[in-house]
Amino acid sequence: MNLLASRSSRMKASEIRELLKLLDQPDIISFAGGIPDPALFPVEAIRDAYASLLGGAEAGAALQYQVSEGYLPLRRWLAGQMGKLGVACDEANIFITSGSQQALDYLGKLFLSPGDTALVTWPTYLGALQAFNAYEPRYERLTVDGGNMTPDAYRAAAAANGGQAKFAYLVPDFANPTGNTLNRQQREAVLDLAGELDIAVIEDAAYRALRYDGDGEPPILALDCARCGSIDKARTLYCGSFSKILSPGMRVGWVCAPRHIVEKLVLMKQASDLHSPSINQVVMHRVAEAVFDGQVERLIGAYRERRDGLVAALEANMPEGVTWSRPEGGMFVWVTLPEGSDATALLTRSVKEARVAFVPGSAFYADGTGRNTLRLSFTLADRRAVSEGIPRLAAILKG
Amino acid sequence: MNLLASRSSRMKASEIRELLKLLDQPDIISFAGGIPDPALFPVEAIRDAYASLLGGAEAGAALQYQVSEGYLPLRRWLAGQMGKLGVACDEANIFITSGSQQALDYLGKLFLSPGDTALVTWPTYLGALQAFNAYEPRYERLTVDGGNMTPDAYRAAAAANGGQAKFAYLVPDFANPTGNTLNRQQREAVLDLAGELDIAVIEDAAYRALRYDGDGEPPILALDCARCGSIDKARTLYCGSFSKILSPGMRVGWVCAPRHIVEKLVLMKQASDLHSPSINQVVMHRVAEAVFDGQVERLIGAYRERRDGLVAALEANMPEGVTWSRPEGGMFVWVTLPEGSDATALLTRSVKEARVAFVPGSAFYADGTGRNTLRLSFTLADRRAVSEGIPRLAAILKG
Repeated sequence: MNLLASRSSRMKASEIRELLKLLDQPDIISFAGGIPDPALFPVEAIRDAYASLLGGAEAGAALQYQVSEGYLPLRRWLAGQMGKLGVACDEANIFITSGSQQALDYLGKLFLSPGDTALVTWPTYLGALQAFNAYEPRYERLTVDGGNMTPDAYRAAAAANGGQAKFAYLVPDFANPTGNTLNRQQREAVLDLAGELDIAVIEDAAYRALRYDGDGEPPILALDCARCGSIDKARTLYCGSFSKILSPGMRVGWVCAPRHIVEKLVLMKQASDLHSPSINQVVMHRVAEAVFDGQVERLIGAYRERRDGLVAALEANMPEGVTWSRPEGGMFVWVTLPEGSDATALLTRSVKEARVAFVPGSAFYADGTGRNTLRLSFTLADRRAVSEGIPRLAAILKG
Repeated sequence: MNLLASRSSRMKASEIRELLKLLDQPDIISFAGGIPDPALFPVEAIRDAYASLLGGAEAGAALQYQVSEGYLPLRRWLAGQMGKLGVACDEANIFITSGSQQALDYLGKLFLSPGDTALVTWPTYLGALQAFNAYEPRYERLTVDGGNMTPDAYRAAAAANGGQAKFAYLVPDFANPTGNTLNRQQREAVLDLAGELDIAVIEDAAYRALRYDGDGEPPILALDCARCGSIDKARTLYCGSFSKILSPGMRVGWVCAPRHIVEKLVLMKQASDLHSPSINQVVMHRVAEAVFDGQVERLIGAYRERRDGLVAALEANMPEGVTWSRPEGGMFVWVTLPEGSDATALLTRSVKEARVAFVPGSAFYADGTGRNTLRLSFTLADRRAVSEGIPRLAAILKG
């Protein structure tokens, strides 16, 4: 259980990159990329926002340096959005990042010293492992269905490796890669464990708005605030992103956190890149005010249909012994092959023989296990891709 | 000489920030900010580039995720620009950053372990010290007019502090804060020292294009390439930026470096923020292709006049014993007060009594010395600011 997995997951990342290069070939049907459908970007709203901004009195300020914490009207708008999710806060609790990847990097830098322990689910978001690896932690397994080690056992294992447990990281809604969502009890259990260990919780909410079924649960941060009475006493750091709803290429994300954490992140940002691009923050604020809710509805309609299509194709085609998740939202379906299968070897065959690509699941395990799992993204999976690609993948599995 | 100056320069930075808050008061004449004049931004060219990009076939790609190394056409354009400066290279030697501050952060992260030594000039760019401080180095003084310690002495001092000398950092053209420019002999001497120590040279070229007099010298990287025959064997890492010419708020900079360094920076960027905003890179490429040279000419005309106006006002007003630089380019004039003067105390009086602001020079010294120096920026110094502000500042110095 005591795994120093940095090296192992880095190698996986480079393997994945090599394989993903194959995807440039035009006849490949890819379920690999974890990216939104560019045909659904609100291009017109974004174009109008840049045009009116650069034709108006704020153009100079939007092209100039600005404060490290971010554009105040955007921070206020986000504080309002967090309020709707049950997190009472104001702009002092909002810090603008260059995408939520930067939030993970900064939080890794803030909390981790070499040899410290980060609790992550098995599997977890590969980019989080990459961000944290720079600070040389070890990883310990966090389970959301009970079965965690006792707090004393976590502490002892961390101490035996010369560090301390510093945080639990997880994606509670439609996780990358599994598509899983934590219920209320599981969210409370994470807070219980973090409280007993007195560690932070990093809540990666990148997919939260993309819910296709049901009502969902409050963010862990909201439950934390309800427990302790104020966001400034909370231990949860919520990482949000516009990448999945409006545009990843503009690189705008945010952290909602206690003020004392935001203040540290601001100093870190000042030293590391001064601030996120001023112009993108102003435009994102205007676009979000104008079209955010409608854009979420539009994406939900499109992606729900694609998820349903992918799941139906798996049901119709996959051989016995193969199982998969039916996510309530997000971008990913998680497939489990029979014990002993190797999804990395399958990928090589699948690309070569079936011209179908996916991401092998072991890339997402801090310890490199999970070799019989794989991730399928449905955001770019139109009817043709699904109706041709899934039978071809299934044929290889049967063959 | 063996200074662990992180804490000292951090305190200075926070002091400076407090003082700079005063600058929001509308009647203050400020020579403090190190920012370009927003009235000179090429707003129309930038507006047109966003509009045509977002109205065309590349809109989707510009709003989507992209590769960590940056937008290929921009990297090729920059390789061409570097070629004009005497650095034969191609796109594999160009890495796009979110402003050159991010380059300094990444290079600090790449080279420095706690206790390692960075050679910097006394004074140097405050933001570089802030970027490097995150990696807990100590600083050793680099002089460009000879008088450096012997390589053995540098090595011994570094080893005595439990680390190694890792790089020399400097701004060879119109330095922030002094306005000084290194001549050919000084550039070669820096390479000689770095060669003897076998360390990297970080060449911060943020102001290079803004030359108002004379012809200038090749970049240190060009001299390095001439010595070793190929950029891929060079020890110099050139950090460039569009911030001073086109727009700081778009946050686009670059590193020109040996391929093996670029490859490491790409991995670092993938883990830390995936990539700089796609859309800003595409727009910067289009704007640079369309207006870069003309914009440089325009800025040179405007800023040369402001430099001349500021220097003339200093000559006409400053009391005996006060001296100043006459920079060949850039944004700053460096003022030296009589020995024993304290520019931080002067700033407090100057803001209160004369409503004039500047940056005290000690902020730029890794060891907190230089208390009798101060920095004046002339980029925002129009005739009224100079004709009213400098006599008022001089009156305080005389009084």
